[in-house]
Amino acid sequence: MDVATLVAQAREGKPRAVARLISMVEDASPRLREVMAALAPLTGNAYVIGLTGSPGVGKSTSTTALVSAYRRLGRRVGVLAVDPSSPFSGGALLGDRVRMQDHATDPGVYIRSMASRGHLGGLAWSTPQALRVLDAAGCDVVIVETVGVGQSEVEIASMADSTVVLLAPGMGDGIQAAKAGILEIGDLYVVNKADRDGAATTARELGHMLSLGEARGPGDWRPPIVKTVASRGEGVDEVVEALEKHRAWMEAGGELRLRRRRRVADEVEAIAVTALRARIGDLRGGRRLESLADQVLSGSLDPYAAADELIAGLGA
Amino acid sequence: MDVATLVAQAREGKPRAVARLISMVEDASPRLREVMAALAPLTGNAYVIGLTGSPGVGKSTSTTALVSAYRRLGRRVGVLAVDPSSPFSGGALLGDRVRMQDHATDPGVYIRSMASRGHLGGLAWSTPQALRVLDAAGCDVVIVETVGVGQSEVEIASMADSTVVLLAPGMGDGIQAAKAGILEIGDLYVVNKADRDGAATTARELGHMLSLGEARGPGDWRPPIVKTVASRGEGVDEVVEALEKHRAWMEAGGELRLRRRRRVADEVEAIAVTALRARIGDLRGGRRLESLADQVLSGSLDPYAAADELIAGLGA
Repeated sequence: MDVATLVAQAREGKPRAVARLISMVEDASPRLREVMAALAPLTGNAYVIGLTGSPGVGKSTSTTALVSAYRRLGRRVGVLAVDPSSPFSGGALLGDRVRMQDHATDPGVYIRSMASRGHLGGLAWSTPQALRVLDAAGCDVVIVETVGVGQSEVEIASMADSTVVLLAPGMGDGIQAAKAGILEIGDLYVVNKADRDGAATTARELGHMLSLGEARGPGDWRPPIVKTVASRGEGVDEVVEALEKHRAWMEAGGELRLRRRRRVADEVEAIAVTALRARIGDLRGGRRLESLADQVLSGSLDPYAAADELIAGLGA
Repeated sequence: MDVATLVAQAREGKPRAVARLISMVEDASPRLREVMAALAPLTGNAYVIGLTGSPGVGKSTSTTALVSAYRRLGRRVGVLAVDPSSPFSGGALLGDRVRMQDHATDPGVYIRSMASRGHLGGLAWSTPQALRVLDAAGCDVVIVETVGVGQSEVEIASMADSTVVLLAPGMGDGIQAAKAGILEIGDLYVVNKADRDGAATTARELGHMLSLGEARGPGDWRPPIVKTVASRGEGVDEVVEALEKHRAWMEAGGELRLRRRRRVADEVEAIAVTALRARIGDLRGGRRLESLADQVLSGSLDPYAAADELIAGLGA
């Protein structure tokens, strides 16, 4: 199927076309460039929510509950479950099937697991492109769910309009939070499993630690803390409410545009650097670098001047 | 002092000028470019010997003995002791003073320790430039001595005309050798401390392992194994003889030119990639990337097309 037809079908919300396009992103298809050019005029509508937290805090359950809440508001919702450690990907994972049960028959929901399967720039590169597919496919809200391990939560936070950090009572989560640096990335904190012992303590400790953070001015955003029992849907409407407030605050102050601009600038820069490296790599087999090396060896050129000529020769 | 004067003094072999220039390399001085341009026509004479081995095999003693042997032949000798793990550098290290005792008053010898002190490309970048300083300063032979840990010995081997791998009897060196991949990098193997028990066994095992390596044709170089007691100077003339044979073989078959060309090509490529990254980095503060990001956000441009425009805008 040609790219124009795929994009047209994705725009109508046909799940198979959306799936095909995201697979092309994951596989770094040679037609990706054509896909992105076709998608460009269709994007800019989706509100991107990042959702992260340690294993066991209830990310999948919370995502499912959030999807339900947004569906009740009539929004079309996309979910990208990003697993930086998984070598697998795609909609065939058991996890997806289980999670999709609530929304499997709902044409207003698209759920997809993603892994960095050999993509040059990894998920940091493929995720924004997959977001663009869901955006063009008419999603009003896209939830990017990722395990909070290592750097991945920071990376994903930089791709979202609003970032939700999920915690659960006990397990020294407060201290873990400080360690993981999640205190700097959350626009909204959710203490899930709030029916368990220690939920109040976790929320209080978290509030204390957030207040110790950088000083905030009168117009600054103060990340709220919401308690939920996602498995019963309790508190989830409050989460949506807080997210909508954050979105309104970002739109009013210009923060939303700044975040998105920074995000796109990162993406464009990453593509440019990769393209330049590839062009230099192409020269290795050829005569140009060899001839420059010969001139350096003969002393007629220094290595810096040779590098300049190499760059000029890229036709960049 | 201006670069031209420094280079002129280094060419006369003045140690302080040589030291200043190598410090400029280590510190990634902004005048490095000017230095390299001034040095270019003066280089191409030095024969670069890489010397590597595990801690305790007698690298410093062997280097000192090799310097003495080359001095007896009337050659001017430079030594770069490269320590990838050390945050320090320069001629003030105790190790240098100890090692210089034999050659401290000899104007035909220049010894210098180097570390990668904040240099962007690390030692892989600074070492070739320091070699160029010593080459221009009139060294006929430069010995690059490095600890054989991790990847560093492979990196250093790629910078040398001939690579000497040093071993000592016992300590399961044979097995260690195979593990470290040094069987692929040596043009010459030296079993030092040959007066100790097990020297013959080590040499035999090594010979066996080398013969198991890739098949060699009639005209190929077969790395010889030389036994030394470097502390008494025994066998060191044989090492020099073997090195001179290797050099003659490389010159006759064109291998020397190929190795040097590959080395310089690597260096030029590394400088070019760094320069391109820096140029893109410079754009971050500016209006260009911001304006491209805005066009992507508005949907009038896709990120690949934006990256193309970014590259075109580099003036590369």
